[in-house]
Amino acid sequence: MDANKYVYLFSEGDASMKNLLGGKGANLAEMIGMGMPVPQGFTVTTTACNRYYDDGKKIDPKIEQQIFAGMQELEKISGKKFGDAKNPLLVSVRSGSRASMPGMMDTILNLGLNDAVVEGFAELTGNPRFAYDSYRRFIQMFSDVVMDVPKHNFERVIDQMKEEKGIKLDSDLTAEDIKEMVVRFKAYFKEQKGFDFPNEPKDQLIESVTAVFRSWDNHRANVYRRMHNIPYSWGTAVNVQEMVFGNMGDDCGTGVAFSRNPSTGENKLYGEYLINAQGEDVVAGIRTPEQIATLEKVMPAVYKQFADTAKKLENHYKDMQDMEFTIEKGKLYMLQTRNGKRTAAAALRVACEMVQEKLITKQEAVMMVDPGTLDALLHPQFEAKALKAANPIGAGLPASPGAACGKVVFNAEDAVALHEKGEPVILTRLETSPEDIEGMDAAAGILTVRGGMTSHAAVVARGMGRCCVAGCGEITIDEKGKKFTIAGKTIKEGDFISLDGSTGNIYGEKLPTVEAQIGGDFGTLMGWADSFRQLKIRTNADTPRDSKKAIEFGAQGIGLCRTEHMFFESDRIRDMREMILSTTEEQRRAALDKLLPVQRSDFEGIYEAMQGYPVTIRYLDPPLHEFLPTEEADIQQLSKQMNIPAQRIKEVISSLHEFNPMMGFRGCRLTVAYPEIAEMQTRAVIEAAINVQKKHPEWKMVPEIMIPLIGEAEELAFVKDIVVRVADEIIAASGVKLEYLVGTMIEIPRACVTADAVAAHADFFSFGTNDLTQMTFGFSRDDAGNFLTHYYDKKIYESDPFARLDQVGVGKLVETAVKLGRGAKGDLKVGVCGEHGGDPSSIEFFHKVGLDYVSCSPFRVPIARLAAAQSALRFPR
Amino acid sequence: MDANKYVYLFSEGDASMKNLLGGKGANLAEMIGMGMPVPQGFTVTTTACNRYYDDGKKIDPKIEQQIFAGMQELEKISGKKFGDAKNPLLVSVRSGSRASMPGMMDTILNLGLNDAVVEGFAELTGNPRFAYDSYRRFIQMFSDVVMDVPKHNFERVIDQMKEEKGIKLDSDLTAEDIKEMVVRFKAYFKEQKGFDFPNEPKDQLIESVTAVFRSWDNHRANVYRRMHNIPYSWGTAVNVQEMVFGNMGDDCGTGVAFSRNPSTGENKLYGEYLINAQGEDVVAGIRTPEQIATLEKVMPAVYKQFADTAKKLENHYKDMQDMEFTIEKGKLYMLQTRNGKRTAAAALRVACEMVQEKLITKQEAVMMVDPGTLDALLHPQFEAKALKAANPIGAGLPASPGAACGKVVFNAEDAVALHEKGEPVILTRLETSPEDIEGMDAAAGILTVRGGMTSHAAVVARGMGRCCVAGCGEITIDEKGKKFTIAGKTIKEGDFISLDGSTGNIYGEKLPTVEAQIGGDFGTLMGWADSFRQLKIRTNADTPRDSKKAIEFGAQGIGLCRTEHMFFESDRIRDMREMILSTTEEQRRAALDKLLPVQRSDFEGIYEAMQGYPVTIRYLDPPLHEFLPTEEADIQQLSKQMNIPAQRIKEVISSLHEFNPMMGFRGCRLTVAYPEIAEMQTRAVIEAAINVQKKHPEWKMVPEIMIPLIGEAEELAFVKDIVVRVADEIIAASGVKLEYLVGTMIEIPRACVTADAVAAHADFFSFGTNDLTQMTFGFSRDDAGNFLTHYYDKKIYESDPFARLDQVGVGKLVETAVKLGRGAKGDLKVGVCGEHGGDPSSIEFFHKVGLDYVSCSPFRVPIARLAAAQSALRFPR
Repeated sequence: MDANKYVYLFSEGDASMKNLLGGKGANLAEMIGMGMPVPQGFTVTTTACNRYYDDGKKIDPKIEQQIFAGMQELEKISGKKFGDAKNPLLVSVRSGSRASMPGMMDTILNLGLNDAVVEGFAELTGNPRFAYDSYRRFIQMFSDVVMDVPKHNFERVIDQMKEEKGIKLDSDLTAEDIKEMVVRFKAYFKEQKGFDFPNEPKDQLIESVTAVFRSWDNHRANVYRRMHNIPYSWGTAVNVQEMVFGNMGDDCGTGVAFSRNPSTGENKLYGEYLINAQGEDVVAGIRTPEQIATLEKVMPAVYKQFADTAKKLENHYKDMQDMEFTIEKGKLYMLQTRNGKRTAAAALRVACEMVQEKLITKQEAVMMVDPGTLDALLHPQFEAKALKAANPIGAGLPASPGAACGKVVFNAEDAVALHEKGEPVILTRLETSPEDIEGMDAAAGILTVRGGMTSHAAVVARGMGRCCVAGCGEITIDEKGKKFTIAGKTIKEGDFISLDGSTGNIYGEKLPTVEAQIGGDFGTLMGWADSFRQLKIRTNADTPRDSKKAIEFGAQGIGLCRTEHMFFESDRIRDMREMILSTTEEQRRAALDKLLPVQRSDFEGIYEAMQGYPVTIRYLDPPLHEFLPTEEADIQQLSKQMNIPAQRIKEVISSLHEFNPMMGFRGCRLTVAYPEIAEMQTRAVIEAAINVQKKHPEWKMVPEIMIPLIGEAEELAFVKDIVVRVADEIIAASGVKLEYLVGTMIEIPRACVTADAVAAHADFFSFGTNDLTQMTFGFSRDDAGNFLTHYYDKKIYESDPFARLDQVGVGKLVETAVKLGRGAKGDLKVGVCGEHGGDPSSIEFFHKVGLDYVSCSPFRVPIARLAAAQSALRFPR
Repeated sequence: MDANKYVYLFSEGDASMKNLLGGKGANLAEMIGMGMPVPQGFTVTTTACNRYYDDGKKIDPKIEQQIFAGMQELEKISGKKFGDAKNPLLVSVRSGSRASMPGMMDTILNLGLNDAVVEGFAELTGNPRFAYDSYRRFIQMFSDVVMDVPKHNFERVIDQMKEEKGIKLDSDLTAEDIKEMVVRFKAYFKEQKGFDFPNEPKDQLIESVTAVFRSWDNHRANVYRRMHNIPYSWGTAVNVQEMVFGNMGDDCGTGVAFSRNPSTGENKLYGEYLINAQGEDVVAGIRTPEQIATLEKVMPAVYKQFADTAKKLENHYKDMQDMEFTIEKGKLYMLQTRNGKRTAAAALRVACEMVQEKLITKQEAVMMVDPGTLDALLHPQFEAKALKAANPIGAGLPASPGAACGKVVFNAEDAVALHEKGEPVILTRLETSPEDIEGMDAAAGILTVRGGMTSHAAVVARGMGRCCVAGCGEITIDEKGKKFTIAGKTIKEGDFISLDGSTGNIYGEKLPTVEAQIGGDFGTLMGWADSFRQLKIRTNADTPRDSKKAIEFGAQGIGLCRTEHMFFESDRIRDMREMILSTTEEQRRAALDKLLPVQRSDFEGIYEAMQGYPVTIRYLDPPLHEFLPTEEADIQQLSKQMNIPAQRIKEVISSLHEFNPMMGFRGCRLTVAYPEIAEMQTRAVIEAAINVQKKHPEWKMVPEIMIPLIGEAEELAFVKDIVVRVADEIIAASGVKLEYLVGTMIEIPRACVTADAVAAHADFFSFGTNDLTQMTFGFSRDDAGNFLTHYYDKKIYESDPFARLDQVGVGKLVETAVKLGRGAKGDLKVGVCGEHGGDPSSIEFFHKVGLDYVSCSPFRVPIARLAAAQSALRFPR
C-alpha cells in the first residue's frame, strides 16, 4: 500500500480496508464491487486525519491536491463538473471511522452549490424551488458544521419570513420565497462572521473535509470513544460522494432499514422511509415516516430490488445489516450498509437463527454477540409502557444496572426494618459506607448524592446485582430530617420513587418493573460459548443468596468470598468491635471465640449453595478502623453495650487512624500482628467444610484459603504455617479426609516481581487487580476521580484503568507474576478476582496470559462466559 | 566441602572459612596454622546452627556424635580426658558468627567440672580454692546461660554467706567457704528448677552448645542484627576450646589489646590486662585493669611475645587487630583475634598510615573504612568531659546525628524569633509538619514526642543535617502551655536542654558542644576514594546554605532541589495559599505571578552556590492541602489577610481532603490539572539560569527540570510540551544560548515497567526510591511503623526498606527501568535521589545496575563518595 496515498476512489477499495477507509467508505467500496447501485465517490483516509492532527491541525497541500484529483476522477465518472453552473456535480461530505459512532461526527450535503451554480441547477432540474431549497439547506448545514454558526439560528430567519408572509407550513413557501431566504441566510452569516459566505466550491470542499477531521476531536465524540473504548489514534475517514436526491418529487424518497428486526431479532425487513424527502428530514421528525413494508405497494420494483439487496448484503457480511438508501426518480441508490446495532435479545436471536439458517457457524454466532450487552437481560426492567409515560425528576450516574421501585429510607436500619415488613425499599444516602452493607442488601435500589462509578455504593451494588444510581449532585439531602429535595420537589421518608440503574434516571413515582426473561436463545448461545472457552468462570460472592444466583448464571465456583462483609451485620459487628478493642491476646481470643460459630455457619451456608464447587475464602482484609463506629451516638451505645468508657473507644479509634489507610495496617498484616485472627478463620473454614463433607459425601470439598495483600514470600510462609497447623489439627481430630489449598492474592507490585519466591509457598495465585491497579499507578480509587477527568480531557488516559485492565502497565506485572510463579511451580493455579474479571477486554487479556479462571460478580458471570469464549476463538492457546 | 561435616578441629580450618566456622573459629584456626600459641579446640559450624533451627530447635543425633568425636580428638591432642577426675579436660564454649556481634551471645567457661572432677582438679592444680572457684563460676554461668536462672540471684547467695561469715571481700573467702558455696548454689538451682544441676559433662556440653545456638535468636541479638544488617540466615558457630587459666596465681593473667589505638588510630599497642584473673573479671569491672604497656615491666618476655604476635597478626590480616589473651603460669595463650572496631577518626588514620607503611594499597585503605562511621565526623559533638559528667533525663530515637544545646521553644514561629535574636533554639513538638520547616531550619536541634526514624521530623532533620531526637514517648507535652514534663521534671519555654542525636539522649542542662574536626587523613582518603569511584555524587538541597555545605563536602551537583520547601516560608505561604484557593485560571495566574520573582531569586541563589555544577529542580510535588492551614486561628488570620470568608477557606480545605493523600492529587497530576503552575516554575528556572549565565559566562549553565510522579509516557509528554514551549520562548527572547534538560522522577511502579515509553520523552531518569518503596510494598511510610515491628519480630523483614533499598523487590523494578530506559535511549542519564542515595549498601546496588549518580543529603555526601568507591572496587563495571 502506498503510504503517500491519502485518497481512494470507491472503485479502488473494498471491505477489508476498513482501518484505512473507515467503515462507511470500505462498505461503499465493497457494495460497488458487488455491482450494487451506489453513487460514486472517493474516500480521504484515516491516515490523512492523523496527518491533519500531527501537522498542527492543517491539511497538507499534497493531500489537498489528491482530494482535487479525486474530484476530477469523480467528474469523469459522473460526466458532471464540480462548480460548473451548466452541469454541476454536487457531493455529500461525511465522516466514517473504523468503528461506527452514530451521530457523533458531522455531515454536509449538497456541496458544490453557489449563487451561480444554483441557477444552473434550477434550470437543469426544472425545479427552482428544489434547487434553492437545496442551496438553503447547504448554507445552513455548512454554517453550522464548518463555521460554527448554529443551525437553529437560521430557523429563526425562516420563522420570521413565514410570519411576514402570513404562512404556516414550510411547504407553502414558494421558490421565490426560498430564493429570498438564501439572501437572508447569507446576510445573517456575514453579520455573524464578518465575512461573506464562501462562494468557491473548492474552498467549501476543503473546509468541509477539515470540519469532519475536526469533529473527531469534539467533546461528544471523545465521550463516546471513552464509553466504547475506541482509541483516539484511529482517526476518521471522510467520504465525498455524488449527491442523489430523494426530494425531487413523489417518485423520490429516502429511508433507513435493517435486514432483520434490531429490537427482537425477527428475520424480517425492518425500517422506515419518507417519500420526497432528504435524509435529514427523517431524522428531524417533522413528518412521520412510513413502515418499510408499505414501500412494496408504493414502489413494488424498488422495494423488491431493495429487499434483494438487503438479503444479498446480509449473506455477504454474514450479519444483520443497517442500510441507508435514497430513491431518485424511481431509481434506488444504496448510501450505506453496516452491521446493525441491536438489543441483546435481538443479538441472541439473530445469532441462533443464522446458525439454523446455516448462514454462519456456531463459532461465528458466539463472536457476533457483544458480551457487554447481555447485562440488560440479567436485571429487572421497568414496564416499557409505564417508562415511556414517565418523566424523570433528575438523574445521577448509572452505577449498577436494573430497575427498582420502592419507598425511600435514609439509613440502613430503616431499610432493614421496612424490608422485613415486606416493603420494597430505596436506600438514599449522602454516600454509603461499609456499615450500610445490610441496608444495601435489604434495599431494592440505592441512591447516593456523592460518589462516582467506582464509589463504595457503586462497587458493592454491582457486586450484589442491586440497582444503583450514584452521585446525583442535584439532590439536597437531609438525612436526619429524612427527606431530600430534587428539582424543587421534596421527597420524604416512605414516598415511592423509582430508579433506573441503566440510565441513571430517577422518577418521583411508582413505576412497575418486570423480571427480565432469559429466552431459549440465551441458553443455546451460552452452551456454545461454554464449549469453546478455556477460562473457567468463578464468582465473587459473600452470601448463600449471591452464591445461588451465580450458580444459576453458570458460575463454576467462588473465586472471592470476602469474610469481612459478614462482620458488618449488626449481630456480629459488636463481637468484631470487641475483638478490635481488645488490648490483650486473651481478650482478643475470647471475642474471636464468639465470632467462630457465626463464621462457620456462614461458610456452611455458602458451601451448601455451591454444591461442591470450589470456594475461595479470603481472610480478613480491611483496616480494622472500618469496623469501628464514627458517630458519637454509636460510640456511646457501644460504650454501654461493652461496658468500656467512651473515651477509651475514642482512643482506640484514634490510634487506628492512618494517613493512608489503603497502604496501612490491613490484609495479611493483621494476621502477622494477631495470628489468632487467622486461627479462628481457619477453624471456621475447615470445620464448616468437614461438617458439609459429612452431610454430602458425594461432594469433594476442597476449601481454598486465600491470604490477602502478600508482598513478600516470608510473609505468606508465616501465615501459611499458622493455617496449616490449625487446619491439620482439626482434620486429624475429625477423622474426615479433607484436602484444602492455601494461596494468595497477588495485588502488591512487589508480589508480582518476586512471584517465584511467593509461589514456593502458594497453591494458587489470584490477582486482585483493583489494588494492583492502585499501587501500580500510585493513585487511590477513592481519590483519583478528582484528577482523572483532567487526564481524559487531555487524552493522557483513554479509559478508566479500574474498569478496564491497563494491559501495558498493570498487565505487564500480571504477566511477570504468571511467568515467575509458573516457572517456580508448574501446576500453580492462577486466577483473577478483581472487578476486571467481569470486563470483556480484560478477560481477553487474562485468557492470553494463560490464567485458569476469572472471577466476577454473579450478574457478570454470563458476560464473562461469552467473553472467555470469544477470547478463546480469537486467540487459541 | 563435605556437607555432612558439622564439626571442624581448629587444625582443619583457616581464615577463609569464616562463613562456615564464624569469625572467631576461623581466626583461631588461622592462628594455629601460623604456629601461634592457641589452646586447641574445635568448631561446631554455622550450618549446624541452621540445621538446629530447621529441625525445630533440636540438635540432630548425628551432629551430637560429631561433637563427641571432636571432643575425643581434643582429648588426644591435650592428653587430658573430658569428665575424668584424674586428668580432667576443661573447655570453654563460645559463640562466633560470621560478623562480630560483641556481647550479643553467650559464653560458658570451665565446662567439664562436676562434683567428682572438681576434687581431682583441686589435687592436680594443688589449688583447691581455685578449683572450687572455677566450679562455682561454672555453675553460675551455666545456670544463667543454659538454664535461665539469672546470674545475679547467685550473687545474693554469696552476699548472704559473706554476711554469715562476717567478711567483706570475696578474696577473704576460703577454699572451704567456696566449697560450701557450691553446695548452696546447687541447692538454690534445684529449688528454682525442680531438678538437680546436671552432673554429666557430656550433657553439660550439648546443653551449652544448644544454648549458644538459642542465643542467636535472643532479643538483643535480633536487634543488633537489624541495626547492622546481618542476616538471620547466617547463624552462629560454636567454639569448644581447651581452658587456660589466668587466675591460677600471680604468674597468670588475662587481657584484651588492640594492635593500634582504636580511638585515635595511633600505631601503638593499646589495651588492658589483669593479673590473676579470668576474662569475666575484666568485664565485671570489680578490679581496675592495668594499661598494657605496664606488662612490659611485669612480664617482659610475655610482653615481647605478645607485641610480636600482635604485629605479626596485623601484618597477616593487613588490619588493626583486637586480641584476647591469657597468661597461664607465665605462658601466653591467644584466645581470639579479629579486625578491631574503631572510631571514624582512628579508621582514617589507620588506613592512611598503613598505606604510608606500605602495608596496604590505597584501594585496600579505601575498602578498610566503614562509610557509615564517617557520619560522626560531620556533625558537632558534646565536649567529651561534659558529656561524661551529665545524666540524661530521658531518651528518644537517635533520628538525626550530632549534638545540640539550646533554649526550648514549642512552635516554629518562636523558634524563628528566638533564633533571630541570636539564641540557640531546641524546637520541641508533639510531631512536626511541613509548616514547621522554617522553625526546624532555625533550630539547633529538634525534639518530638511522636514519630519514628522515618517521621517527617527525622527525614527533614537528616536532610538539613540538623540534630534530631524523635518519638520520645516519655514526654508529656503541653504545646499551648509551652512546657513539657519528662521523668517528673518540667521544662518550660526558655529552659536550656541538650540533645544527642547520635544516641537519642536528652539532657536537662546546658552541655557545651564542639564542631567536629576534619583532619588531613579524611581529605587524603576521600581523594583516593574519588579516584576509584564511577558513580557521581550529587546532593539533595533546597537552599543556598545547604548547597554550599554540600559543595564543601564534595558534591558534584544537586540531584534534587524540592521547590515546595520554598513555599512554606512565611512570606511565601500566603501567595501559595492564594494560588490554591483560586477558583479560576486567571486568579491562579495572578497568584503565581507573585510567586515567580521569589522562586526565580531562590534559584539564582542556588545556582550561584553550586558554581556551575548541574542543578536538578523538581517541580511542585506535595498535595496542595499540605500548604493550607489546619488550626482555626490560622484560618481566621488567612481569611482576614486574603479577604475571603473563613467558611470558603474551610470548604476548599475540605474539598482537598483525600482518603489516601499519598496516592492522590499531587506530583505531575497538579500540572496536568493546572498547567500554569509548570509554566511559572519553568519561567523561574530558565530566567534564573539566564541571569546567572550572564553574570558568570565562565560557567555552562544547564538546568535540569524534573517532573515528579510520572506513571505514563503521555503524562510526561504533556508536561514536557508545556515546559519546552515556555522555556524556548524565554531563551529565544533573551538572546542567551542556554541548554536545559527535562527528565522525570521514576517513583511509580508503572513508570518502571513502561520505562521504554517514558524514556522517549525524558533526558534523564531519577529514581525516587522513597515513593517507589511505598508503592512497591503497598505500605505508607507514615503508617508502616505500626505493623513493621511485628514483621521484624517475626523475621519477615530484617531491615527497614526505607533506610536500605529492598534489592529483591524494589531493586528489581529499578533494574527493569534502567534496562528498558537505556534500551530505548542509549545515552539516558540515570540517577537516584531517594534517601537510599546516602545508604552504603544501596549505593552498591546502584553502582551495580549502572546508575550515573546518586544524590543524598549534604551530610551524607562524604559517606556516599566512599561507598561509591568501595562499590567500584568490589564490582568493577
